[in-house]
Amino acid sequence: VSGPWVYLNGRFQAAETARVSVFDRGFLYGDGLFETVRAYGGRLFRADAHHARLATGAARVGITPPFDAAGFVDLLERTLAKNRLSDALLRLTLTRGVGPPVPDPAGCDTPTVLVAPRPAPGVDGQAWRRGLAAERVNVAGTGAGLKSTSFQPHVLALRGARGRGADEALLVNPAGDVAEGSVSNLFGVWAGTLATPPLAAGGLAGVTRALVLELAARLDLRFEERTLSAKALADADELFVTSTGWEVMPVTRLDGQPVGSGLPGPLTERLHRAYRERVTAACGLSRGPRRG
Amino acid sequence: VSGPWVYLNGRFQAAETARVSVFDRGFLYGDGLFETVRAYGGRLFRADAHHARLATGAARVGITPPFDAAGFVDLLERTLAKNRLSDALLRLTLTRGVGPPVPDPAGCDTPTVLVAPRPAPGVDGQAWRRGLAAERVNVAGTGAGLKSTSFQPHVLALRGARGRGADEALLVNPAGDVAEGSVSNLFGVWAGTLATPPLAAGGLAGVTRALVLELAARLDLRFEERTLSAKALADADELFVTSTGWEVMPVTRLDGQPVGSGLPGPLTERLHRAYRERVTAACGLSRGPRRG
Repeated sequence: VSGPWVYLNGRFQAAETARVSVFDRGFLYGDGLFETVRAYGGRLFRADAHHARLATGAARVGITPPFDAAGFVDLLERTLAKNRLSDALLRLTLTRGVGPPVPDPAGCDTPTVLVAPRPAPGVDGQAWRRGLAAERVNVAGTGAGLKSTSFQPHVLALRGARGRGADEALLVNPAGDVAEGSVSNLFGVWAGTLATPPLAAGGLAGVTRALVLELAARLDLRFEERTLSAKALADADELFVTSTGWEVMPVTRLDGQPVGSGLPGPLTERLHRAYRERVTAACGLSRGPRRG
Repeated sequence: VSGPWVYLNGRFQAAETARVSVFDRGFLYGDGLFETVRAYGGRLFRADAHHARLATGAARVGITPPFDAAGFVDLLERTLAKNRLSDALLRLTLTRGVGPPVPDPAGCDTPTVLVAPRPAPGVDGQAWRRGLAAERVNVAGTGAGLKSTSFQPHVLALRGARGRGADEALLVNPAGDVAEGSVSNLFGVWAGTLATPPLAAGGLAGVTRALVLELAARLDLRFEERTLSAKALADADELFVTSTGWEVMPVTRLDGQPVGSGLPGPLTERLHRAYRERVTAACGLSRGPRRG
């Protein structure tokens, strides 16, 4: 299905035949967490930040991961090597493990760990320039910042948006403000100022989001966290989303209308370039940015 | 783990060894739905109502169940018979099935079907009289009425409440109103009037809730759907929760304080008795109510 080998609870197995118990709480209740880490040229990018988020989430939900930060990196690197991949997305899934099929997880204390690779998304220069079409979707809650396998609200928002010809759904919280994308964080530019919703709006603390904030500071961009009403988006000069897979990806159409000029904006371009430079530096790539 | 036999995608398998692919979207994304149906004395109770809710939810999320109402009943009855059970809870899980590990479910159209039995909860008269301790828990969203396997918010609320010595968590929506219990619906009595939150508050359309409404009408009780602020609960004369497993279960303590007299109230008793009579009539039991 994805790659030929997955890591599951201590050993590598053929992806096609790897199985978990039907009593795994990840299957019965979406009672788990996950992280997806990008590898470029054989090197993991921002693995420590992903581990930190996983560890924080695991403590909140009361799952004890059977690895520390070094063990997390080791699992991902071994999965990469086992599959002879150098550019890939590695998803680590941590669930509460097998237990009786009742909601109360008491006594369920042997977590399940899965690492599954998939090829890195192919975003060429042409696709990047075209950018994404996004769509606003009202959601009841946005997962309260946990990167949970209880992901169905996000899945449904994305599915609806894709069904209507958009690429990404922007999730609007009950207060009417944008929280995040279904699989990304959102940024925008208004009168030269870069802004993104505060995490209090309900979005996930994206690893790529954090890096883009760091890059914005280094580039001396005017920046703020700002509550973004769904209406405010329509007035943006630029919009882009960030994720491990999409990196910095322009949103050029929103709800069927062009965003700003309808082309990737100048700050989006600068941050995209800075991100790719950071990837190149961190992962020791000799070739330049993909879309260079 | 639960019973010895589960039904999985067309055949019965030993529960201990029944497995699903690690790429099942139920495991990766909590992208599925479930129903839990009670069997009394070998007869299913309210199976059609459970099927109706599942069919409605499946249409909303875009999963096509490989069975109709009769097939749903047949799967449950066969699981009951295969396990030689007469009193049991039968959980049917329907997920979007196996697909690539990306959030977009496009092209994933062979659902997974699991039916797993577990013994019926043993609620004796003494436990019923003691009633439950409940606790209020603020949640970002309550699943927008879907009985989804993306159940982690409910699991975490229940886990927190149990950890603090309560039996059930009452979920408070972002507006500050009670939506439901983590695994139940809530009812209360104020000055002789029975009330339950409207489904618009975010709770699930419980099959047992619907039956209790029907019984309240038949008993000519004063009844209304009413927005219940978390504060209003403290003034209730009676509180009870309803679910397929708990049936009509008194809540006698809330956030550590007694509810009303601290004992099951008279309307709670009447509805409990009426519910048990309905079970007896529908499932042809010759013995009287369990706690009789």
